Amino acid sequence: MKTRKYTAAGLALLAPALAASARQKPNIVFFLVDDYGWPESSVAYGEEVYPRNLQFHTPNMERLAEKGVILTQAYACPVSTPTRTSLMSGMNAAHSHITNWTSMARDEPSDAVGGKNGAAIYEELDTDIFRRPEWNINGLCPDGVSAPADVQIATPVVRLLRDAGYYTIHVGKAHWASAGTPGSSPYNMGFTVNIAGTNAGLPKSYLGTDNFGNTPELWNMSAVQNMTEYYGDEIFLTEALTREALKTLEYPIEHKQPFYLYLAHYATHTPIQKDDRFFREYKEMGLDNGQSKFSSMVAGVDKSLGDLMDYLEKKGIADNTIIIFMADNGGNADVKSKGGVPHTQCAPLREGKGSCYQGGIRVPMMVYIPGKTAAGTRINTPVVPEDLFPTLLELGGVRSYQIVQPVDGKSLVPLLTKGSRLAAKAAKKGEITDQKSANAFVIPETVSGIDPERPIFFHYPHQWKVDYKPEVDFLSTVIVGDWKLVYVMMNTVPGQRVADGVPLELYNIREDIGEKHNVAAQHPEIVARLAKVLGDRLRSWNASMPIVRATGKPVPWPDEIVL
Amino acid sequence: MKTRKYTAAGLALLAPALAASARQKPNIVFFLVDDYGWPESSVAYGEEVYPRNLQFHTPNMERLAEKGVILTQAYACPVSTPTRTSLMSGMNAAHSHITNWTSMARDEPSDAVGGKNGAAIYEELDTDIFRRPEWNINGLCPDGVSAPADVQIATPVVRLLRDAGYYTIHVGKAHWASAGTPGSSPYNMGFTVNIAGTNAGLPKSYLGTDNFGNTPELWNMSAVQNMTEYYGDEIFLTEALTREALKTLEYPIEHKQPFYLYLAHYATHTPIQKDDRFFREYKEMGLDNGQSKFSSMVAGVDKSLGDLMDYLEKKGIADNTIIIFMADNGGNADVKSKGGVPHTQCAPLREGKGSCYQGGIRVPMMVYIPGKTAAGTRINTPVVPEDLFPTLLELGGVRSYQIVQPVDGKSLVPLLTKGSRLAAKAAKKGEITDQKSANAFVIPETVSGIDPERPIFFHYPHQWKVDYKPEVDFLSTVIVGDWKLVYVMMNTVPGQRVADGVPLELYNIREDIGEKHNVAAQHPEIVARLAKVLGDRLRSWNASMPIVRATGKPVPWPDEIVL
Repeated sequence: MKTRKYTAAGLALLAPALAASARQKPNIVFFLVDDYGWPESSVAYGEEVYPRNLQFHTPNMERLAEKGVILTQAYACPVSTPTRTSLMSGMNAAHSHITNWTSMARDEPSDAVGGKNGAAIYEELDTDIFRRPEWNINGLCPDGVSAPADVQIATPVVRLLRDAGYYTIHVGKAHWASAGTPGSSPYNMGFTVNIAGTNAGLPKSYLGTDNFGNTPELWNMSAVQNMTEYYGDEIFLTEALTREALKTLEYPIEHKQPFYLYLAHYATHTPIQKDDRFFREYKEMGLDNGQSKFSSMVAGVDKSLGDLMDYLEKKGIADNTIIIFMADNGGNADVKSKGGVPHTQCAPLREGKGSCYQGGIRVPMMVYIPGKTAAGTRINTPVVPEDLFPTLLELGGVRSYQIVQPVDGKSLVPLLTKGSRLAAKAAKKGEITDQKSANAFVIPETVSGIDPERPIFFHYPHQWKVDYKPEVDFLSTVIVGDWKLVYVMMNTVPGQRVADGVPLELYNIREDIGEKHNVAAQHPEIVARLAKVLGDRLRSWNASMPIVRATGKPVPWPDEIVL
Repeated sequence: MKTRKYTAAGLALLAPALAASARQKPNIVFFLVDDYGWPESSVAYGEEVYPRNLQFHTPNMERLAEKGVILTQAYACPVSTPTRTSLMSGMNAAHSHITNWTSMARDEPSDAVGGKNGAAIYEELDTDIFRRPEWNINGLCPDGVSAPADVQIATPVVRLLRDAGYYTIHVGKAHWASAGTPGSSPYNMGFTVNIAGTNAGLPKSYLGTDNFGNTPELWNMSAVQNMTEYYGDEIFLTEALTREALKTLEYPIEHKQPFYLYLAHYATHTPIQKDDRFFREYKEMGLDNGQSKFSSMVAGVDKSLGDLMDYLEKKGIADNTIIIFMADNGGNADVKSKGGVPHTQCAPLREGKGSCYQGGIRVPMMVYIPGKTAAGTRINTPVVPEDLFPTLLELGGVRSYQIVQPVDGKSLVPLLTKGSRLAAKAAKKGEITDQKSANAFVIPETVSGIDPERPIFFHYPHQWKVDYKPEVDFLSTVIVGDWKLVYVMMNTVPGQRVADGVPLELYNIREDIGEKHNVAAQHPEIVARLAKVLGDRLRSWNASMPIVRATGKPVPWPDEIVL
């Protein structure tokens, strides 16, 4: 295997300032929320406050927004594992071929169509148009160990942080890989401590009174491990994980070691359950049961963030602790238990989790770098999960390292620091006066090192659930500035007419945030240009594509199809 | 709660030498084996090699014996939790009132008679002579947290080690407390890292192919947690835990921090399962299936010890790493799956696990303190689990600390160091010439700080299994030198005539290692003296006693009964 070497010269310029010495290294908290939609908080990431924002009260997220930077155009993959593995490897999901969530058990594709090994997950039906693509169904595997089949091997960013002196702590959901593979254990990914991170992508139950799923009636492989202390207690998993996280911080704080805490809540993934501490508040607002339950879960996450910030302040280390707040994919808009009207949960965005429409991929994100980010600013440059790999290394002062994988992302540090300061200056000068103008403020590449119009890619060549859904399944997309091309693979098959009925849709996501108006017919030259950008990239990554059952051939690249 | 302060003055004299500075602190490995009998290895702890020793091949235990010291009269409690909590708290089990194993679920007494809360475990039967005693059914709880009912609160020794700079690692079985209580989590006991330690007292399965019990068919609360990486693999739990243990050592070694590794194997507890790497060897020796399975499990533990020792040598830290090897109670002599003839597994000792006869409490133990213990020596001074608390503190150079509990044990460091060197000198002078004379060599209190004839106490006021067994249930004992008094509580009840038919049995365990000859009738004055010693101690600890159903009164203290 080829090893790639990186040295400081190849990294952004701020690194030396952030990493003067091991003693001064900042702590880093990565606070990851699961299945958590862009408008599902009282922090308004958009140009305005949307009705959906009003169903949440998240004062601690607001507190972080005031201290740090809001990234108004943060993106993630449509489902969990691809985002999580991209964070860990720096690779785009289409490039690592981890484009779907990994099953709990090894060698079982999670595709809802064309499941290998027979009916491990779902049966392939004669009526299916596509077979599932070949992809790395077992997820990510760290380098240096004996790797199973169907994995992407990578040097995990956490190991690099650890090698650089960080005390690395995993609390919550891991879900980089299936059981029976090294990637399912946070210890193999470079974490020194692990609480509750396994192969599972969701908790069997959030309730201590259910033993988090560890009962004869409830148990399956998603029962949460390592939490026996709370069995039978009236406690919600989010709270229990937070307490465990703070407990694990004692060691590095006592020993004055910089820490990397990856606190990846299982919330707000299904099952949608009532967090009793917050439910009544939402019910009394008039929300239905499902909505109130979900909002109570969000409030629990918000309290967790607040408790963490309080703790850091109490310990006197808040001024040396970076906080990265993010969701792993869009909010779930296709689950009855969440209440409300299906497919509207991410409104004004279209659809939700699973989809390459904005509801599935545009996510909440905030970053606070003490002394470096300008407080209360907004950055609208699009950012992607693979950017976090070089970002974390730069934040951690890791300037020279060897890795086995190619990295697709770019460090966000100059964007977050110099970029946010530029925004603050513009506000002072009166160039930014309100939320709308803040969201519109462009940070040039000369400042951030990132072209605000760099193409970003999301690729979901899968069927998510048993029933095919045109809004979700077999989609691929590229965004370039305001323009977004959506490749509806099903429409490449003769006789199929799903969604708008054409294989290539075009949206101006600035003017049409909800992707309601496909303007492909009006801008054939933009369609052709973006199709070429997307096609070139997918080809260069040898991206996984579904197989057309009728022909046995893969779906064509987007720039190969005849319009 | 009263806090007890200790300073170096109150500790043994060698402490300063062992703890010159934090940098020079020795690493400590506590290697604990479960349900592992005194004669169940090729290391012969007795005066001779017994037939049972020949059913095992444990070269790595032999290797440790050659490097370190064999404790020929090491004792433990008859069952798991009392030993484990004594190690952690320094309290005798009768004193902490944790005299039985803790159930997996909270508030469910594990007694096989008189179960509180109805039939959580077993139903109380009208034919029962005794009701269960009041005891701390939820086990041990660390101080400083909100404690549930029915626990003993103590300052855990591991936290004191951690506070003194140790990197504390838990791998394997914990079993200090029931689920739903703080004591069930190693993180609350002062461990910085935990692999697989929970409320469970046994593993649902040792097999990776069974996911260690994490399958829909097998699961119950004893399914092993935190091991997803190995699901579906052809690997035995002992091997998997060893690999995890070595992985966790990387951090402290890289960071040059002293570590305390508590590697507490689930083996060789039931279920008795085949470790495929070693099974054939024993089958070919002519052992039956059960015996071969059990011996293969022992061989797996032996390999684990060897792998650990190899690793320490490879890392260049063997010369600064103390190894304590011990079993948590006697071998199980009452389980069909282990093969052989029931009740003989600990021969020449009488009975096995659960019993206060020697098979239940006399256990294998070895200690290696680099540069301090004389290699290949034997020490016959009786030692008890509660001794390990002050021993670990002295080994770790913890000379000043505050704890909430009284400590019943004494540091073994002078015994192990000066004592073993005295034995080595005696061997050089020709006073010790063989195994028998080595086992007979007495280390005086002036050297060890421990009276070789100090009374030691084991108290089991419980019924172990559903069927009452006179050899196991409701026994209490004191050993003073060669003399051992066994209090058979059932025989205090008019009309009962179990075992030898008398409530107080007396054995000379030096002349009669198998406790075959009750000589109480020949030595009434010794019986009276030991009954007083035992009675005084149990009274002073307000020890738990079974309740006589017919009278509603507790069983009398041993010195109160009319002979």
